[in-house]
Amino acid sequence: MTHTALGEGREFDRVRAIARTLGDRARGLGDDCALLTPAEGQLVVSTDVSVEAVHFRLEWMDHQEIGWRAAAAALSDLAAEGAEPAGLLAAVVVPASGADQELTALMSGVGAAADSVGAQVIGGDLASGPSWTIAVTVLGWTTRPVGRSGARPGDGLWVTGALGGARAALAAWRRGDEPSPEARAAFVRPEPRVAAGRWLAAHGAHAMIDLSDGLGGDAPHLAAASSVSLDLTLDALPIAPGAADEARRAGTAVETFAAEGGEDYELLVALPPGFGEPDRLEFERECGLALGRIGTVGQGRGVHAHLLGAPVALTGYRHFA
Amino acid sequence: MTHTALGEGREFDRVRAIARTLGDRARGLGDDCALLTPAEGQLVVSTDVSVEAVHFRLEWMDHQEIGWRAAAAALSDLAAEGAEPAGLLAAVVVPASGADQELTALMSGVGAAADSVGAQVIGGDLASGPSWTIAVTVLGWTTRPVGRSGARPGDGLWVTGALGGARAALAAWRRGDEPSPEARAAFVRPEPRVAAGRWLAAHGAHAMIDLSDGLGGDAPHLAAASSVSLDLTLDALPIAPGAADEARRAGTAVETFAAEGGEDYELLVALPPGFGEPDRLEFERECGLALGRIGTVGQGRGVHAHLLGAPVALTGYRHFA
Repeated sequence: MTHTALGEGREFDRVRAIARTLGDRARGLGDDCALLTPAEGQLVVSTDVSVEAVHFRLEWMDHQEIGWRAAAAALSDLAAEGAEPAGLLAAVVVPASGADQELTALMSGVGAAADSVGAQVIGGDLASGPSWTIAVTVLGWTTRPVGRSGARPGDGLWVTGALGGARAALAAWRRGDEPSPEARAAFVRPEPRVAAGRWLAAHGAHAMIDLSDGLGGDAPHLAAASSVSLDLTLDALPIAPGAADEARRAGTAVETFAAEGGEDYELLVALPPGFGEPDRLEFERECGLALGRIGTVGQGRGVHAHLLGAPVALTGYRHFA
Repeated sequence: MTHTALGEGREFDRVRAIARTLGDRARGLGDDCALLTPAEGQLVVSTDVSVEAVHFRLEWMDHQEIGWRAAAAALSDLAAEGAEPAGLLAAVVVPASGADQELTALMSGVGAAADSVGAQVIGGDLASGPSWTIAVTVLGWTTRPVGRSGARPGDGLWVTGALGGARAALAAWRRGDEPSPEARAAFVRPEPRVAAGRWLAAHGAHAMIDLSDGLGGDAPHLAAASSVSLDLTLDALPIAPGAADEARRAGTAVETFAAEGGEDYELLVALPPGFGEPDRLEFERECGLALGRIGTVGQGRGVHAHLLGAPVALTGYRHFA
């Protein structure tokens, strides 16, 4: 059980309720500082903020899902570094209308996401404010940080899972419809690809980035950081269930729809030229996740995407507010 | 100079502008993750969120001061652990009305506070939202974490600096007046007591807490965590300039006014009984900061404060919203 020997007061009652709900998924809540004993390698740390009406709407998802998604988005950054998560801290701004049980549910979602990758909730902060805001800071360790800057001409470009699911859910909601269950799950319960990221780091990944802003938004960062060009064959893009329907309604090719959709939190990875079909099969077997080749690293600059042989200018994903 | 090889877009222009402004006070901005090589001892981490209209108002302070104060409040938690700061991450929510130069000024305040204690800005996140919100996560290292739970009966209770300055500023602003320069400085530019915290940890501190919620708010946490009573002689409280005037206007004894005022970010520390006047003088000489004895740790429970021989029931500090 967590140590929560705190004085009296509503904020501290809330901290105690969160600690009770999280049980073993948390430790040290109520202290101003969390302590962590270093594992082997370097500390990897990242922070990610989710804001009501910008990153999510309360009409679309419950508080537990909001918490999961906020934590998963932050953990996804550790995944792209090939790091092993250790702990996270959540600073939560609660609106005046926010009920204690909504906050507890949100934190149980945060705790579940942490637990799903072997991490604990080790700290946080609570404040009042105009709307729900969750800033999650994640901490992990790695002996081989991957980063964005190591892609080399000739590397293969690969992507985990499938793209466009979260965008499909968003498109349905904005139209006033319910998304398909698969699309909804892609948005409200993205899986941080921690095991995949660690596998890829251990198998020679030169560079990785998580697709929070979509392939169109994030591929340019990897190209810029590595001083290379990325040549993408969108025809090969793995498409999430539900994306085809929404792309049709939007009058967009489903590949473009998926490439420009954000918040799928899949990994884009540059792997050495020798990484081939046997390696791909081993990845899929060990990680229980698809891995698809979508392009090649070149000697130029920028991102060059093609679909049916014609160039496509991809744009990044923008939040809806 | 920091590595900011990012793709195009307004968010990334803002990150580049922040990296330019911070110069050597930042590193690695623009990457999703920051890397930190472990120093000796344990990692100490803490997160602290500041919300416009809850923790500060734009009418009272400029953006650089808002940034300094948000970072100093978080660094104060490291000070109370006796830790050496290494880096910090700042997740900033910018309102639609927020100008690029306001964000840059805010981050220059964050960077100045980090720099003042030998730390760098190593990461962050930007989002849009309803009002300015800054979640600062601080990272440091310590071989001797102090914590709140080690106070023992017979220990002396001491406080750094002087109390009541930040509350005096707040009282003046809320009345529509300008605070005195000293009171204003206490509120907008609190000094995280990092050097003092490290000195006290190295000289045998049994327990420490920073007075973010005031002596009335934070002393009960130290008492609860250590399972002791704290017997406080408020007559001995060091009083900040400007507090006397405001206490008089409020019709409160200045000692109570100072004990119940928050956000001074001084340290309350339990030191072994043998810590005496020569040690106090050495602290003041080496840290350039006052240290005053204000009470004794007892065998009971809770906080027992006296003023002029009569018991005083202290309440904690509440934010104004």
